[in-house]
Amino acid sequence: MVLPPNVSEADFNAALNEFRLAVGESWVFTSDEDVALYRDSYSIYWGEPEERVASAAVAPTKVEEVQQVVRTANKYRIPLYPISTGRNLTYGGSAPTMRGSVVVDLKRMNRILNVDEKRGFALVEPGVSYFDLYNYVRERNLKVMIDVPDPGWGSPVGNSLDHGVGYTTAHYRDHFGSHCGMEVVTPEGDLVRTGMGALPNSETWQEYRYGAGPYIDGLFTQSNFGIVTKMGFWLMPMPESYLNGTITVPRYQDFEPLVEEVSYFEDLGLIGMPQYGSPVGGGFMGPPSPALAALMQNGWPTVDALENYVATQKRPAWSVELNFYGPEETVRANWQAAKRRFAKAIPGAAFQDGQLLAMPIPKEREAAQADKPRLGIPALEIFMMVARNPATNADPADGHADFFAYVPRKASAVWDASRVMYETYREMGAPPIHHPFFTPINYYSRCFIVATVVPTYRNAAKNARSRELFAKVMDRCAEHGWGCYRTSPAFQDRLMSKYSFNNNALLRFHQKIKDGIDPNGIISPGRYGIWPANMRGRRA
Amino acid sequence: MVLPPNVSEADFNAALNEFRLAVGESWVFTSDEDVALYRDSYSIYWGEPEERVASAAVAPTKVEEVQQVVRTANKYRIPLYPISTGRNLTYGGSAPTMRGSVVVDLKRMNRILNVDEKRGFALVEPGVSYFDLYNYVRERNLKVMIDVPDPGWGSPVGNSLDHGVGYTTAHYRDHFGSHCGMEVVTPEGDLVRTGMGALPNSETWQEYRYGAGPYIDGLFTQSNFGIVTKMGFWLMPMPESYLNGTITVPRYQDFEPLVEEVSYFEDLGLIGMPQYGSPVGGGFMGPPSPALAALMQNGWPTVDALENYVATQKRPAWSVELNFYGPEETVRANWQAAKRRFAKAIPGAAFQDGQLLAMPIPKEREAAQADKPRLGIPALEIFMMVARNPATNADPADGHADFFAYVPRKASAVWDASRVMYETYREMGAPPIHHPFFTPINYYSRCFIVATVVPTYRNAAKNARSRELFAKVMDRCAEHGWGCYRTSPAFQDRLMSKYSFNNNALLRFHQKIKDGIDPNGIISPGRYGIWPANMRGRRA
Repeated sequence: MVLPPNVSEADFNAALNEFRLAVGESWVFTSDEDVALYRDSYSIYWGEPEERVASAAVAPTKVEEVQQVVRTANKYRIPLYPISTGRNLTYGGSAPTMRGSVVVDLKRMNRILNVDEKRGFALVEPGVSYFDLYNYVRERNLKVMIDVPDPGWGSPVGNSLDHGVGYTTAHYRDHFGSHCGMEVVTPEGDLVRTGMGALPNSETWQEYRYGAGPYIDGLFTQSNFGIVTKMGFWLMPMPESYLNGTITVPRYQDFEPLVEEVSYFEDLGLIGMPQYGSPVGGGFMGPPSPALAALMQNGWPTVDALENYVATQKRPAWSVELNFYGPEETVRANWQAAKRRFAKAIPGAAFQDGQLLAMPIPKEREAAQADKPRLGIPALEIFMMVARNPATNADPADGHADFFAYVPRKASAVWDASRVMYETYREMGAPPIHHPFFTPINYYSRCFIVATVVPTYRNAAKNARSRELFAKVMDRCAEHGWGCYRTSPAFQDRLMSKYSFNNNALLRFHQKIKDGIDPNGIISPGRYGIWPANMRGRRA
Repeated sequence: MVLPPNVSEADFNAALNEFRLAVGESWVFTSDEDVALYRDSYSIYWGEPEERVASAAVAPTKVEEVQQVVRTANKYRIPLYPISTGRNLTYGGSAPTMRGSVVVDLKRMNRILNVDEKRGFALVEPGVSYFDLYNYVRERNLKVMIDVPDPGWGSPVGNSLDHGVGYTTAHYRDHFGSHCGMEVVTPEGDLVRTGMGALPNSETWQEYRYGAGPYIDGLFTQSNFGIVTKMGFWLMPMPESYLNGTITVPRYQDFEPLVEEVSYFEDLGLIGMPQYGSPVGGGFMGPPSPALAALMQNGWPTVDALENYVATQKRPAWSVELNFYGPEETVRANWQAAKRRFAKAIPGAAFQDGQLLAMPIPKEREAAQADKPRLGIPALEIFMMVARNPATNADPADGHADFFAYVPRKASAVWDASRVMYETYREMGAPPIHHPFFTPINYYSRCFIVATVVPTYRNAAKNARSRELFAKVMDRCAEHGWGCYRTSPAFQDRLMSKYSFNNNALLRFHQKIKDGIDPNGIISPGRYGIWPANMRGRRA
């Protein structure tokens, strides 16, 4: 058994006994077999001393039990690491930031407390998954649409607290941005409700999020300032219709006006997440096509070479799929307006009508839908992207560590970042996957993501190389002013060291808050670089 | 001269001298005449000992000067009260929460640092007004639209930090919700940039707001946790068209389906702020019509009496104006969809086409527009609502204190709150202004506001009565679970005492944060109930 740092075995056992009193004997997990379930199966330190493994886990089912666990932890100085439900793959799984922490597994707190169809909100506990919420809504035929992430087994609470995203219009697919109201167990075991929830008998906890005085909800995201036990979310009304269509543009440099026109529709709230692609490039986030790989044999091609290449391919350089939600009149008009505006802005733009669907999708037709999350249907099909089918992948990785570089929403930034990643891979002796037609992801509506996926293994030597590559990509991107929104505990200290303006003023400010509200440093020590005073300087 | 509490005259003078060294002799204001400019001209304690008056004011022009002022304040324990620009009328004006504080007037920090037309954002300092930003954009013919509040002389920074609002679509009119990135001088004089701004040379400070780790921006709203010196805002692309139309419904009880249908359009992001009205009631937020006043002579009428009353009036019970922004195809389709849906949902619904305007409004036609803020044009015409024209108002108040009760977005809640306000006015011996057709305001898209406006005077006896009325309205609303989003310093302690869930856990949590980041209690002591440790228990 791993012990938390600076905790004696006697104290640890005393704490475990108090946890058992709080939550019941069978919900405190200490056997190697049970605790192993909380390992990060994608760990880039798998089996090495640096792997972040838990000492034990405890699964409360009520808020009062969470409070009791926190009070006991304060008494014995036991570090806790709360998780909701789902897998959190590529971002550390269920394993704690600091080795030896006790995982507080909130999966049993899975009550859907309210879904108000007419006022458009839900109130849920952390153990509720997107599948749970979706099934609840469909069983009752409620006319709301849930913005679901990929994959759908995650929790609205956990997903939004890690700044997770979905696929519909900008403000719903920002899951933290569409929340309204929280309940939080503080690091000292107190219980706070935020926004209008602080008003006893509040009638608007899920309707007005700022309350009066400071708006503190953001504190509890990607941090260690409390354990969120309830959270409200705004829901989209079930739109009458869904319509999609694809626009293609002929030239490499058409990407610039393409992005500008898409942004017009995006920022007026007329579309869901635009899906960029490149018919002459590779698949979405895939390696370059063989023809493109050949073109790149002597390095990054010039603009002229790229335009010539596109011309010889007789296929469009870029594509974007637009998705519209709303009354039928509206979605048809939006697509009509898109055709008019893109045709005017980009000579040679071509348009392919997609499908017009009446919403919601009838139950019996759900399984046949190709792109379920865009229709508000939770799914697990995203895993087909990285499937371990030996017929298509002779040497599959065991997992992966994703790095999302956040770059400006403009063509030149995408090209710059793709090239920097390409050159970093070459420098590190890894086969490059980036190329001039690599397409950005637009989860957050105002910025682009240029992504990379570094493989992880159950092999220390291979993992060492992956760690070096991952760290180098992070370093190079930071040098260019491109941050990353999320990473696994293995890289959180490094990531936060990049956010270093004015001698790390932001991190130092976070630590002052930590000292004020968590004097014993109980909750998730080290998460996103925030170490409690008694461990500062320590780096996990 | 008023002195800050527990500060000797010698120390105060030493601090003033250091302020002068920091910002220049002429930008430290200490004469009675100068300091009087920072009084709250709407104060409900005007001329009484409880009036919150400043001891002095200091007006830095650079971030480094703000930091120096804060460091000096820490050295001599001088409480500071930062303001941006504009007037903040009904919410305390420029006067500090605690008597004797030194106002830090940021009006000279009025630089527009960036407006990116294609990526859709602005970065501004606190002294920039909506007029300034609007003029900047129009002079350069930038194709963006600014969501402006009423009145337009306020500051985007100050307005959003007080959770101010405008008139266009839901996510732009929530001014804090549409911000992206901050720079903050901490209470100890350090300098923090939030979100992607913490990355040196960041390229996405105004494009991704959460950065990595906790999202702390909300901390700096309605609080005393720092002085915001820069702030980014997302801007709406200039829509090609604006279209509006009005829907009327015949019966009192039609308000319920009317609200539900409007909410469908609102929550799909298809409309700007819906403007509710009642043709049989009174003007917007006005007292009841004479006929309605007569009906109410024996108290609140029954539903049957209300339906009979409406029938005799031969006018519709309710109206709502919808406003659409976007391509011409889209705005026309949205209005067409509205006609179809409302006609189906509410028998007797009638539709009046408004105007279709090409955007932006040409400069020469701006002055003629009746509803400038909806068109993104800052104005001061809101003051005509409370004009002191003796021809129309024989006994005008000198100011007013607004109370906005936040209630659920449904008809019954509006009716309940209007009745509670009516009964509270009667109980207090004040002439009621609320009635069964009082219409809600929908600034924040997910909740309704039922407002009242209590007069304030340069007369202590009259103000005493106004204070009693205001406090009673606040108390009664809180009993019903209806909070308020903002109030003047005179009522902030009382307001926060209503947010009392779990023995005031939220306020106690705020105070722990305060202790962690502002050990000397320098910034705005008492603001929104947050007193520093050395003054806790004290109530200004």
